[in-house]
Amino acid sequence: MSLDTVSTALSHGGVQGVYRHQSSATDTDMTFAVFVPPHEAGTKLPVLFYLSGLTCTHANVTDKGEYRAACVEHGVILVAPDTSPRGEGVADDPAWDMGQGAGFYVDATQAPWAGHFAMRSYVEDELPAIVAEHFPVDMARQGIFGHSMGGHGALTVALRSPGRFRSTSAFAPISSPLHCPWGDKALTGYLGPDRAAWRPYDACALIDDGARLPDLLVDQGTADSFLAEQLKPELLLQACERAGIPATIRMQPGYDHSYLFISSFMADHVRWHAERLYA
Amino acid sequence: MSLDTVSTALSHGGVQGVYRHQSSATDTDMTFAVFVPPHEAGTKLPVLFYLSGLTCTHANVTDKGEYRAACVEHGVILVAPDTSPRGEGVADDPAWDMGQGAGFYVDATQAPWAGHFAMRSYVEDELPAIVAEHFPVDMARQGIFGHSMGGHGALTVALRSPGRFRSTSAFAPISSPLHCPWGDKALTGYLGPDRAAWRPYDACALIDDGARLPDLLVDQGTADSFLAEQLKPELLLQACERAGIPATIRMQPGYDHSYLFISSFMADHVRWHAERLYA
Repeated sequence: MSLDTVSTALSHGGVQGVYRHQSSATDTDMTFAVFVPPHEAGTKLPVLFYLSGLTCTHANVTDKGEYRAACVEHGVILVAPDTSPRGEGVADDPAWDMGQGAGFYVDATQAPWAGHFAMRSYVEDELPAIVAEHFPVDMARQGIFGHSMGGHGALTVALRSPGRFRSTSAFAPISSPLHCPWGDKALTGYLGPDRAAWRPYDACALIDDGARLPDLLVDQGTADSFLAEQLKPELLLQACERAGIPATIRMQPGYDHSYLFISSFMADHVRWHAERLYA
Repeated sequence: MSLDTVSTALSHGGVQGVYRHQSSATDTDMTFAVFVPPHEAGTKLPVLFYLSGLTCTHANVTDKGEYRAACVEHGVILVAPDTSPRGEGVADDPAWDMGQGAGFYVDATQAPWAGHFAMRSYVEDELPAIVAEHFPVDMARQGIFGHSMGGHGALTVALRSPGRFRSTSAFAPISSPLHCPWGDKALTGYLGPDRAAWRPYDACALIDDGARLPDLLVDQGTADSFLAEQLKPELLLQACERAGIPATIRMQPGYDHSYLFISSFMADHVRWHAERLYA
């Protein structure tokens, strides 16, 4: 698969790049960011996929995530895809919680979304293949994390991919799209009204249906305005407890939903992943 | 002086705020950002002023500067003002290198700029006063730094303010507006064609005219597209050598002019300032 380089720049001793390619999953151009720490020629590094939240592109975490110093310290490559297909001819919704910038990491089955909105296939299959082809990644050592809608994405991708990821974490994830307004709207639109079809896209339902992770780290701000209505970490904690998944869900007093929160705990998440990726 | 809070959020254990006030210097509203690390109630912390470059507001370094972890580690407050007055009724230039977003830290004397474009008075007098009134800063321990046009600002403010700053540094500063196209355009516009009037706004001229700093740290990327034509660190190094100012000007191989460069060396600059602010 061919890949166009949008930009590269040296940062913290590594290379922060932005790349674009024609995606077969979404049938659009897709853009993603990759940070490669300095490393000896010929060596391969563990890779950590970061899935972003509603309204974001690759650029939000690239600009505001403050991950590069930690990735250099721990020797981890970070990959940040976009959150949906985009462009003319791609369906959209007038609100910011659906459509472009809000793909929810599902393969949509409903009109007008089916076709382009195939973010599950994109992040599960196509993106890892293109990353493996073009970057010095050790695909035996993959981790995944994300924020909000991207936390939901990270959890559900990992739960559906037993053995692929050595480490999974999230910042303020949507714990259960089956039980929040964002999920109701988006999954009804993308997948239709049959809520049984949503279960592969709901971390708590996946766990209840038997999916497992070796462990899990979540940070959640207590001043997050989406906490009670949309995010509901208690549902994730309860599902993990029912399943015996050792989950560390840290309620962080006073933190909100922004990158000012995420960046505060980014280095600790990268360290946590690196411990598992290098174990 | 009254101050409106635009936003505050917890980050890295401290408070990242954005504030707005009616400026008497610029006769406009002005917005600035302040990060206050966690500290014991009643204690005051050293304060580091960061002046931004062309096109920037307070938000660029706040989003991309990666200074908060270092400010927490070293116990330093960081203040980031805007780069010009803005709004309806404020003059502007169609290009990005003059007018709104490009105040060059001068007090303009020429039409249509005189009046609002008084960024020298703003950053030298009004902003320190309002910061001293509203934040837990120890004004006996001030440092200043900046990027590009803001590096020029930091150098010239410090050189004109003997004894005020314990520490001065810059990322890729405009070393001499008297000797680059950005300076030619902006200072002709703001100050008129008499180049003698520019000397208080030229770090090299200030040094040649007798101004001194205790020492100086500069980082400059070698892949910076503005290096040869606009920035000219060799002029600054030569002026410092003539004056006996111990200047450390580090040419950083492969780095560009962006925040991917600045953020790479931000923690080291904050550490360097803190050593002097706590000495």
